[in-house]
Amino acid sequence: MLQALRKQVCHANLLLVKYGLVIFTWGNVSGIDRESGLVVIKPSGVPYEQLCPENMVVVDLDGRVVDGDCRPSTDTKTHLELYKAFPGIGGVTHTHSTFATAFAQAARGIPAYGTTHADYFYGEIPCTRAMTDAEIAGDYETATGKVIVETVGGADPLEIPAALLRSHGPFTWAETPTRAAELAVTLEEVARIAALTEQLGGRASIDSALLERHFYRKHGSGAYYGQSTP
Amino acid sequence: MLQALRKQVCHANLLLVKYGLVIFTWGNVSGIDRESGLVVIKPSGVPYEQLCPENMVVVDLDGRVVDGDCRPSTDTKTHLELYKAFPGIGGVTHTHSTFATAFAQAARGIPAYGTTHADYFYGEIPCTRAMTDAEIAGDYETATGKVIVETVGGADPLEIPAALLRSHGPFTWAETPTRAAELAVTLEEVARIAALTEQLGGRASIDSALLERHFYRKHGSGAYYGQSTP
Amino acid sequence: MLQALRKQVCHANLLLVKYGLVIFTWGNVSGIDRESGLVVIKPSGVPYEQLCPENMVVVDLDGRVVDGDCRPSTDTKTHLELYKAFPGIGGVTHTHSTFATAFAQAARGIPAYGTTHADYFYGEIPCTRAMTDAEIAGDYETATGKVIVETVGGADPLEIPAALLRSHGPFTWAETPTRAAELAVTLEEVARIAALTEQLGGRASIDSALLERHFYRKHGSGAYYGQSTP
Amino acid sequence: MLQALRKQVCHANLLLVKYGLVIFTWGNVSGIDRESGLVVIKPSGVPYEQLCPENMVVVDLDGRVVDGDCRPSTDTKTHLELYKAFPGIGGVTHTHSTFATAFAQAARGIPAYGTTHADYFYGEIPCTRAMTDAEIAGDYETATGKVIVETVGGADPLEIPAALLRSHGPFTWAETPTRAAELAVTLEEVARIAALTEQLGGRASIDSALLERHFYRKHGSGAYYGQSTP
Repeated sequence: MLQALRKQVCHANLLLVKYGLVIFTWGNVSGIDRESGLVVIKPSGVPYEQLCPENMVVVDLDGRVVDGDCRPSTDTKTHLELYKAFPGIGGVTHTHSTFATAFAQAARGIPAYGTTHADYFYGEIPCTRAMTDAEIAGDYETATGKVIVETVGGADPLEIPAALLRSHGPFTWAETPTRAAELAVTLEEVARIAALTEQLGGRASIDSALLERHFYRKHGSGAYYGQSTP
Repeated sequence: MLQALRKQVCHANLLLVKYGLVIFTWGNVSGIDRESGLVVIKPSGVPYEQLCPENMVVVDLDGRVVDGDCRPSTDTKTHLELYKAFPGIGGVTHTHSTFATAFAQAARGIPAYGTTHADYFYGEIPCTRAMTDAEIAGDYETATGKVIVETVGGADPLEIPAALLRSHGPFTWAETPTRAAELAVTLEEVARIAALTEQLGGRASIDSALLERHFYRKHGSGAYYGQSTP
Repeated sequence: MLQALRKQVCHANLLLVKYGLVIFTWGNVSGIDRESGLVVIKPSGVPYEQLCPENMVVVDLDGRVVDGDCRPSTDTKTHLELYKAFPGIGGVTHTHSTFATAFAQAARGIPAYGTTHADYFYGEIPCTRAMTDAEIAGDYETATGKVIVETVGGADPLEIPAALLRSHGPFTWAETPTRAAELAVTLEEVARIAALTEQLGGRASIDSALLERHFYRKHGSGAYYGQSTP
Repeated sequence: MLQALRKQVCHANLLLVKYGLVIFTWGNVSGIDRESGLVVIKPSGVPYEQLCPENMVVVDLDGRVVDGDCRPSTDTKTHLELYKAFPGIGGVTHTHSTFATAFAQAARGIPAYGTTHADYFYGEIPCTRAMTDAEIAGDYETATGKVIVETVGGADPLEIPAALLRSHGPFTWAETPTRAAELAVTLEEVARIAALTEQLGGRASIDSALLERHFYRKHGSGAYYGQSTP
């Protein structure tokens, strides 16, 4: 079932290993088939060396396993909230990557300090509010997704396709699972450069004209970066 | 003698190399066979490239070598104190990993700043008190173990399965040698993120409800992380 | 066309990967054939794993593609301004390497704190002024090149063969594409050591006699570093 | 000539690459044959990939090349001063490793903050004084060696077998070239942990009893670390 998507999701999970964002069983990537409304996600607690398209888990948007022998990631319900709220996305990634997690633990968004940031994110990457004790004690993973959606608010989720979950770590989303994983890599590097920028005394956000120029050089109808795809 | 445990301990020692926690001959992992009361540990001063199950050293709980041609790790007596004080543990790891050692040199515990920490450690990882001149001049390695045990105090050693030895570096322990080595890797990453959190201005410990939720999501009878083991 | 230069430029681009300065499609290296006035540069948005001499793009000094099936790097016009202004250079490199980019985002040049710097750069590596909204909204990449040239001013571009583009990242240039790429690697390491020097409380520039001794030990007619090339 | 020593010196130079202390042609290791008074050293400006025992250079204690087709390292005369002043050493290493160089650029020694330091260095690793303009303009590399010897002063050069050359980088020395290279690796790690210790608020030197215990656990007649060599 959903063999092509299983392959994509498995591949995207392994990108996290390739770029040094995860160890052991940390982190997870999922992808959605919008036609059937089914989501493919990493199994819970399985080491990356053992991942293959076959042990990916297929769940519906209510979190029921519809195909697969393993339990899905414990973070599955968080992914599902994002798919339900953001109809334009096709993949979600969660990691505990070092610098992005440090911003999340400091309860801070990542300011847009330069063009590396602007090439991918059209403004500051926000950090969620603290969750309430009731949210934590109840259906925690669903509440986690809802607080991310609340943080994105009325903004276009593909203009700033990431959020930091306070005290926890980053989530990214995109049109495809692979692209969501690449955004997780970029987010970590952007967080690292931002931390160093502050250490060097820099605290000024990028000029808004420059932010706009760089974001739209790569996104939207006026984009002129990359090769034209016929 | 104890061939299976020799293999496990050797493998766990090599995990420290794989994850970049040790160079040269630094660090060591041991494991205990509770039935016989015998401990298998890395030989002293032997480079990791030369480790094999055969040159692991078997000692009894008094530190006498009962099998093996090499001298055991100079830190052996410290390991033995931990096995004697904590009957529920089966493996011990010691490293000089960079960030954890920096906390130890700063005479500070590692505060629980986020869920990466809470997934493995149920609260701050403590730092031991300074050792006295008499402890240092006498049976130093035994005294080292005793001061770690004193630091853990009445707490459950498997709820916070680590301590920082002041001016020195981290010790971790767990049910098995492999798990103890994995905790050493996790501890180093947790220390790194904590140092960065503080650099970014974060100083607030994780909310206690969130700490509890994350620790017990992975530990105890209510754990729901990972695959059920039949 | 220009087969030898295509190979050199491709090789220099791959050096950026080898030394960890770029991921995905970030960064670019070019080289010029001064006789024909043609420039070979990396194609836009093509992953490094897919680079080969054949997909390098040949452009003239007005930016017209004269050979190649791909679009050239979006930064091509910036490279061209440097070739037009600095007749002694044969290669240009642009990256978003971490520490150099952090200095650029902090709107700071990299002070000459030691001999690692002095071995390659005869003084502080400057950071450009902020670009105006008109420059950003207009022919942005050309304006980018002009502001770098303005920053170099009357100085010898081969004595300080680099500049930081404010809010963006570093450019380096040299007699050849390979040498420009090596300078990008060196610049990143020099930036990293400089950031750490400041963290350790160091703020004093290198003594001018030592700066001169080290730079001219490796450059100019009195150089005595390396092997004599017959 | 001196084939065994050529191999050792070549091998020790390549250790610097293995442990990430050098890139390109930076750094150098030498070794001395005390019987003949001849020194084997890395050739100047030759990339590490091209090093082999055959292109090592043999010089006498006056710096004259007595065997080899290449020019010796530009730092050769500095090495020679150390061999002349410290009759107990057999190898010397110089690098620009990141953290040790940052301490040198900050004109600071590396304080002994913990046992990782104490296992190898019996106290603070000193930083040399600033060199005078006359020393820099004259026989610079010889003067560099003399200022290191002056910094060591009356101390035993094998108790603190390293110094930081101000504004420049570290030198280490030991009984053999391999051991000198290993000390360069250790020094860099010690410098890195020390910088992080300070970032975490730690500024207290290690207790002197602990410093002594750890240094003499590994050195001298009472050492009990490692395997007894029959």
